[in-house]
Amino acid sequence: MKIALLGGTGDMGEGLALRWSKSHEVIIGSREASKGAKAAADYLAKAKAFYGDSMAGSISGTSNPEAAAEAEIVVLTIPHEFAASTIMSIKDRLNPKQVLVSPVVPMIKIEKGMVYSPIIKDGRAISYAESLAQELQGIPVVAAYHAISAKKLANPATILNYDVPIAGDDPGAVELVTKLTKEIPNLRPVYVGPLRASLMIESLTPMIINAAIFSKIKDASIAFVQ
Amino acid sequence: MKIALLGGTGDMGEGLALRWSKSHEVIIGSREASKGAKAAADYLAKAKAFYGDSMAGSISGTSNPEAAAEAEIVVLTIPHEFAASTIMSIKDRLNPKQVLVSPVVPMIKIEKGMVYSPIIKDGRAISYAESLAQELQGIPVVAAYHAISAKKLANPATILNYDVPIAGDDPGAVELVTKLTKEIPNLRPVYVGPLRASLMIESLTPMIINAAIFSKIKDASIAFVQ
Repeated sequence: MKIALLGGTGDMGEGLALRWSKSHEVIIGSREASKGAKAAADYLAKAKAFYGDSMAGSISGTSNPEAAAEAEIVVLTIPHEFAASTIMSIKDRLNPKQVLVSPVVPMIKIEKGMVYSPIIKDGRAISYAESLAQELQGIPVVAAYHAISAKKLANPATILNYDVPIAGDDPGAVELVTKLTKEIPNLRPVYVGPLRASLMIESLTPMIINAAIFSKIKDASIAFVQ
Repeated sequence: MKIALLGGTGDMGEGLALRWSKSHEVIIGSREASKGAKAAADYLAKAKAFYGDSMAGSISGTSNPEAAAEAEIVVLTIPHEFAASTIMSIKDRLNPKQVLVSPVVPMIKIEKGMVYSPIIKDGRAISYAESLAQELQGIPVVAAYHAISAKKLANPATILNYDVPIAGDDPGAVELVTKLTKEIPNLRPVYVGPLRASLMIESLTPMIINAAIFSKIKDASIAFVQ
C-alpha cells in the first residue's frame, strides 16, 4: 500500500515511516521535495538497519503535493499551524478513492499548560478533522493517532501498549486505518464513532501534554481500562 | 469531612456514598428531602453490610440546598440537564471556603453515539466546570470523576484501576479532591492543569460511552500508559 506522510520530516512522520515501511511503500512529503528526499534517505537507512531482510516496503521522499497525488492513504503528520497551507497545496491532487488521516490537533498554550481549541462553526465546537471533511467534500477523512508518543513511535524496537481511538464516517476508510494500526505492535485500534466523535479524540493530546507538565507522566498515551 | 452529593440518588451518588462513607460524613441531596433521606438509608444499610465495624463515617439525606449548606465539599452528581436548576437552588447556600466538584458533562446524542457539547462563550469553547466557576465567582471549582464507571463505583468490593484526571485553579481545593480520590482503592488522581483543562476531561465521557457502543468496551475508564 502507498502511504504518504505529509510534513513527514517531523517526529511523527519518522515514527510512522519506520513502522509502516516494513510492509508498505511510504512516501515522505515536505514543503521542499529535497527535504522530503533527505529525510526519506535517513529513515530508510534506519529501517533497513532494523528490519534487515524482512523489510518488504520502501521509503522515498518528495514534495507534499507529489506525495499526496501518489498515495492511497495520506496522513497529515503536521502541526495544526501548518495544516491550512499544506491542505491548500494538495487539495487539487486528492481524489475520493484516497483516505485522508488526520492526527492534527488545534490547541493553544495558556498561562499554565495547553488547552484544546476546537473550531467554532455556526455556534458549535467542531474538530479539525470535521472541518477538513467539510472543506474537502467527498474525500473520506479518518481521525487517528493523536495520542501516540512520537518519540516512542520513532523507535521501532519500542512496543506501544496503547489504545488508538479512531473516528470516521466511511466504513471502508475506517477499516483501512484500523488494519494499518494493528500492524504496529501492540497498538489497539478502538472505533469511537462517526467523524464528529473526533472532537473527543483531539482533546486527548493537550490533556496528555498537561499530564507530562503537571504530573510528570512523560511520553504517555492512553488506554481504556475495564 | 462533610461531603454533599447533590442529586446523589443516582448511580454516581450511590457509588461515591458507599466509597467515602467508610471515613466521611456523606450527605445525599435530592430535589425532595424525603427522596434524599430514603436513598441515604438504603446506601447506609449497604455500607454497614460491607464495612461492618470498620465504618467510621455516615450517610444521611436531605434536600440539595440543605446538603450544600452543610458540607465542606459539594459534588454535583447530576446529569447536565439538571445542573442549571440544581445550581440555581443551592447558589445562595455556598461559601468560598467550600469546594465544588463537577463531574458534569454537557453532551448530545447524535445519529450514531454521543458527542461532547461544550459551552460556547465569546466565540470560544469552554467546559461546563469553567462556566460554573464564572457563574459562582469565588467558589473554588474542581473538575473530576467524569470517566468513572458508576456501575463499578457502586460496588465497594470492586477495585478501580483507573487514572482520574483532575483540573482546577485553587491548589488547596485540588489537593483535597486528590486526597479524597486516593481514598478509593486504586484510583490514581492525575492533575492535568488549571480549570480550563477541564474541557479535555469532560470530553472523555462521550468518548468512553462511544467505545462501549461501537467497540464493546463496556463500563470502562481510562489510564495514562507510558
